Amino acid sequence: MDYAFETIIKVRDYETDSQGIVNNANYLHYLEITRHEFCEAAGTSFAVMQREGLDPVVRKIEIEYLSSLRPGDSMRSCLRLRRRGARFVFEQDIFNAATGSPVVTATVTVVCLEGGRLGRGDLLAKAFEKYL
Amino acid sequence: MDYAFETIIKVRDYETDSQGIVNNANYLHYLEITRHEFCEAAGTSFAVMQREGLDPVVRKIEIEYLSSLRPGDSMRSCLRLRRRGARFVFEQDIFNAATGSPVVTATVTVVCLEGGRLGRGDLLAKAFEKYL
Amino acid sequence: MDYAFETIIKVRDYETDSQGIVNNANYLHYLEITRHEFCEAAGTSFAVMQREGLDPVVRKIEIEYLSSLRPGDSMRSCLRLRRRGARFVFEQDIFNAATGSPVVTATVTVVCLEGGRLGRGDLLAKAFEKYL
Amino acid sequence: MDYAFETIIKVRDYETDSQGIVNNANYLHYLEITRHEFCEAAGTSFAVMQREGLDPVVRKIEIEYLSSLRPGDSMRSCLRLRRRGARFVFEQDIFNAATGSPVVTATVTVVCLEGGRLGRGDLLAKAFEKYL
Repeated sequence: MDYAFETIIKVRDYETDSQGIVNNANYLHYLEITRHEFCEAAGTSFAVMQREGLDPVVRKIEIEYLSSLRPGDSMRSCLRLRRRGARFVFEQDIFNAATGSPVVTATVTVVCLEGGRLGRGDLLAKAFEKYL
Repeated sequence: MDYAFETIIKVRDYETDSQGIVNNANYLHYLEITRHEFCEAAGTSFAVMQREGLDPVVRKIEIEYLSSLRPGDSMRSCLRLRRRGARFVFEQDIFNAATGSPVVTATVTVVCLEGGRLGRGDLLAKAFEKYL
Repeated sequence: MDYAFETIIKVRDYETDSQGIVNNANYLHYLEITRHEFCEAAGTSFAVMQREGLDPVVRKIEIEYLSSLRPGDSMRSCLRLRRRGARFVFEQDIFNAATGSPVVTATVTVVCLEGGRLGRGDLLAKAFEKYL
Repeated sequence: MDYAFETIIKVRDYETDSQGIVNNANYLHYLEITRHEFCEAAGTSFAVMQREGLDPVVRKIEIEYLSSLRPGDSMRSCLRLRRRGARFVFEQDIFNAATGSPVVTATVTVVCLEGGRLGRGDLLAKAFEKYL
């Protein structure tokens, strides 16, 4: 399957918990880092959007944990983007960079507030047009 | 609706991000804290389970973000537990403690490793029998 | 020794790292939580200060790690406040709540920006006058 | 001044707090990441040390905050290492990668537990001999 963007992220030792594996909440950080880097690759940034009155907010996340990452591991974090009206759906997969094993698969739904109200998403769609 | 357990958690200022609201990943922390406190209320703990060779791991999380929490806010975090064979399903809701508004609603699926392999869940079910 | 304020904080399981003990960075969170709760006890809050144009920023931290906290532990986190001109010095100690053992001892120096510039600290001193 | 090691780290948006700047505790994470990457560059790793019964623990941190980092910023994080008997002292400086401005300067003292007891540090010294 084709992805619109991918990046490599290395596990930080403090991200593991007492089970010796990366704590489940940190994967939301990895997913967010990937979306924000994708924004930058697309020529915009979270900070720029906020200055323009656009406020993308996460509405829903579905995440499946398929295998664990440990200290020393690196991951390949990939995403694909679809628009559904005012909703932007990120399909995000993380793989163990060394073995290629799937680690998590997630669907992240983002809506865009414009001036504090739910926007139609046209401004965001314009920013990402070549990826949609 | 009835919950098996609930607890109050206060937002920590460092949990907010540059948008001035609690970052989405921190809600997985709140949900985990609630499950772990529930375990303690049920007379066990994560540390105890690990010593007994039980290793509950999160398999899937579905979370919807309904409203935001900000510095100074407190939340009422509630859960209900169902067993589905080897899977334990936590239905978790977080409400703004002051206003009662729903903040997130989540379904967290946990399986139990016993000695490193997927267990049938009978030991965990025994620990939680009065809540199932 | 007398403290101006103290609070109980419970370790969250995700705050430990692969060594099974609370990661060193989390103690700065505990110290910050304690200062912010102290502000609230003193009748103000971080959010209120910011709205009034006061921006307290940490300038320096010296922290000694004396013993470790683990999952399940609670701590008693205590502070004392001194003013040194424009600088506010928090002497903060954390003890294991169960055993009384010292866990960390820290000195945190805070200065106050007023409208973006280093202030003389008189407004902050007024807020804390009964503790100085 | 000469450093034994340096690395580039990019601020992650979720590391900022409600003041819009990176929260003070995250700098301890940056310092730790830098020490752990230094270990890897020196041919060892935290995980490897632990397997060999070596358990380096942070005893003391002195950190001065000189300027702030914000979303979008990258830092150059540098360290130098000295041994003082059983203590290993890391002098760590972080600079804004774009402007070169000093961001934090820190001294981190680490001791080495060997089999749970304070060790003389000879094993750790051997691992780092070319940097001391």
